[in-house]
Amino acid sequence: MKSVKELLEAHGKAEKECYFDWENGSLVDKEVFNAMKPFFLEKGYGNPAITHRIGWESYEFYGMEKEKIANSLNVDSVNLALTFSSTESNNITILGTTRLNTKRKKILVSSVEHLSVIHAVKSLFNQGIIIETIPVTHNGVVNLDILQEKLDENTLLVSLQSVNHEIGTIQPVKEAIEIVKDKDEDIYFHTDASAAYGRIPLDFLDLNLDFGTISSQKILGPKSIASLYVKEGIKLKSIYEGQLSIETLSPNVEYMPLLAGFAKAVEIQFNKFKEINEYTLKLRDKLMYGLQTTIPRVEINGPEGHHRAPDNVNISFLGCEGEALTLESSLNGIFASSGSACTSRILMPSHILTAIGRKPEEAHGSFLMKLTRLNTEEEVNYTLETLPKVINRIRSITGGIEL
Amino acid sequence: MKSVKELLEAHGKAEKECYFDWENGSLVDKEVFNAMKPFFLEKGYGNPAITHRIGWESYEFYGMEKEKIANSLNVDSVNLALTFSSTESNNITILGTTRLNTKRKKILVSSVEHLSVIHAVKSLFNQGIIIETIPVTHNGVVNLDILQEKLDENTLLVSLQSVNHEIGTIQPVKEAIEIVKDKDEDIYFHTDASAAYGRIPLDFLDLNLDFGTISSQKILGPKSIASLYVKEGIKLKSIYEGQLSIETLSPNVEYMPLLAGFAKAVEIQFNKFKEINEYTLKLRDKLMYGLQTTIPRVEINGPEGHHRAPDNVNISFLGCEGEALTLESSLNGIFASSGSACTSRILMPSHILTAIGRKPEEAHGSFLMKLTRLNTEEEVNYTLETLPKVINRIRSITGGIEL
Repeated sequence: MKSVKELLEAHGKAEKECYFDWENGSLVDKEVFNAMKPFFLEKGYGNPAITHRIGWESYEFYGMEKEKIANSLNVDSVNLALTFSSTESNNITILGTTRLNTKRKKILVSSVEHLSVIHAVKSLFNQGIIIETIPVTHNGVVNLDILQEKLDENTLLVSLQSVNHEIGTIQPVKEAIEIVKDKDEDIYFHTDASAAYGRIPLDFLDLNLDFGTISSQKILGPKSIASLYVKEGIKLKSIYEGQLSIETLSPNVEYMPLLAGFAKAVEIQFNKFKEINEYTLKLRDKLMYGLQTTIPRVEINGPEGHHRAPDNVNISFLGCEGEALTLESSLNGIFASSGSACTSRILMPSHILTAIGRKPEEAHGSFLMKLTRLNTEEEVNYTLETLPKVINRIRSITGGIEL
Repeated sequence: MKSVKELLEAHGKAEKECYFDWENGSLVDKEVFNAMKPFFLEKGYGNPAITHRIGWESYEFYGMEKEKIANSLNVDSVNLALTFSSTESNNITILGTTRLNTKRKKILVSSVEHLSVIHAVKSLFNQGIIIETIPVTHNGVVNLDILQEKLDENTLLVSLQSVNHEIGTIQPVKEAIEIVKDKDEDIYFHTDASAAYGRIPLDFLDLNLDFGTISSQKILGPKSIASLYVKEGIKLKSIYEGQLSIETLSPNVEYMPLLAGFAKAVEIQFNKFKEINEYTLKLRDKLMYGLQTTIPRVEINGPEGHHRAPDNVNISFLGCEGEALTLESSLNGIFASSGSACTSRILMPSHILTAIGRKPEEAHGSFLMKLTRLNTEEEVNYTLETLPKVINRIRSITGGIEL
């Protein structure tokens, strides 16, 4: 087997490079970087809990920056906890609610939730926690009738994401919350809004949510900082313990450079909310329908139009396998991911494509591209020119076999 | 009550500023910052688990950078997990071992461990986990005879830090491990080496440790990244669940910019290990003994000479209260912390000063300063000139009352 270094050397660098794998990793732009820079090097580097000038300076920035994030969700910043990742936010919610109410044992999640939600619930099996999944339509929309049927006095928590991270489905979260709270005010409701944040309007206060997860990385802020909204009055406990610190749900999380980067990314995304989302929507449709038109045997995964997040393109190229797809695209400077099992070091097929009824050969050929304000129309044009050749080549090598 | 903004305006900025509060927060220098910069902006920003050029590039850097950290401890990088904080590393160890062996219920810790260790153990009380603390001498050295006495077949884990973070005591970790393993190979041994890492030689392999915690921030790397060494063959489980990722003990932790900053800080600290530690030791003794000589009624907290970490100065000014101390010092440009209850927003007195037998009035007046390669002799000289006046002023205001 070749070493990664040899692989990289053999790969070389394509003449043009288009990064669409924002779901899995992202850079920050100059503006976000410049917002972090002074906090790394010269100011606000103290612990905001400590009583000296550098500590107070940190505390002041901490409050200001957190306020910007809270405003973007229309919540009070005292109800917004900083965490290290949306994975942690989801886990704090799930592990935390099982401690708040030890009588109820059932957690309902849609079948297309992020794995951090599904795995967190499943990890509690030994503690008697049962997971029940709510099926979705072929477009990934959760079935509200089945949700309603499954609610009972044993139901502790319902976790439904706002937007699906792989296929862009916008979920009927508002309706789901009404159904849940109509049935029983004491059932907690959580939304993982990581893939929705900054893409569709979110008003956590108006939604009457109990818990909401958002992430910095998903709006082009730095990774290793995220947040969890917890409704006023709910006394959630942290899942691990530290020195007493200002942030209590995730001890030791307050780090000004990352918070400053997060807040700057929020500022950019929300100051130009309409503009950015109209822009990515235009690119999305040009890319998605362009590929559908020029390449035979393709299938769009997820809904279309305004039922789909404006940044999401997920399309299956039948007769192609994900590993060949991402590799051959990469050689041509197009970086995306696939729901196929073999395209990541972790060998995990997409449970989401299975949940919407895609057959293995359809999931194998899936290709996920996301669009951000940093993508250009030129990149979309290049991709529309290049991908048909990539697909053609893969299909000709595999002999057009029905995989 | 004044707002933080008003407080800062009233405070102003001293002519000269000397930062010694490295225990609670730190900046990074240009070199570390420049190591992070390209990973934020242009390269290695992909998820290292994904199979495209940016993913592979990230994976290659990930391996290289982690190797540097592993080398600094003489361990194999496959046995080193990345985490978000040393708090998380300590918690993974404690919560994780209780799952590895559900029969044993006793965890032994020294009375001067970091609160993330003590609080983590105490949080398991409902699961039947008992904490027993090993007392320390007046210099903070753990009592090995009592450790030996307390070991029994119910003992799950012994957690003993390598260096105390407040009073600089270097613990006899090697001897403690021998005692524990001689008694029973199956008792796990963990050291929180956060305050030791980079200051005293640490060879985790030679020590025959099971678990070891280190932190990036404590060697002037960025915060929000740390590490946990887990001995080959021990199958520790994560304390929360995520998408499958390369790092398994703390899902979703791999972020190249912070890793690059951590690795650069390691490189600097270990390439000049002897030089840096001789330098801070010289400054330490000049500062500590200088204050002892020029200010009446002071007490050094912790041991002296080579039994004390080279970066640690902790001194009690009798007749002073911590809040006045840190505030008045801050007004004069000297930033440090105190073990008094009132000097942080979290109102927590130092359990360490109590554990070494300090009376309340001694703990009240304690003043913790740490020295790094970024401190200068000029700062030490300034502090030696300034602090006597600060102490004098505080004592004259409080009327020299024996607090």
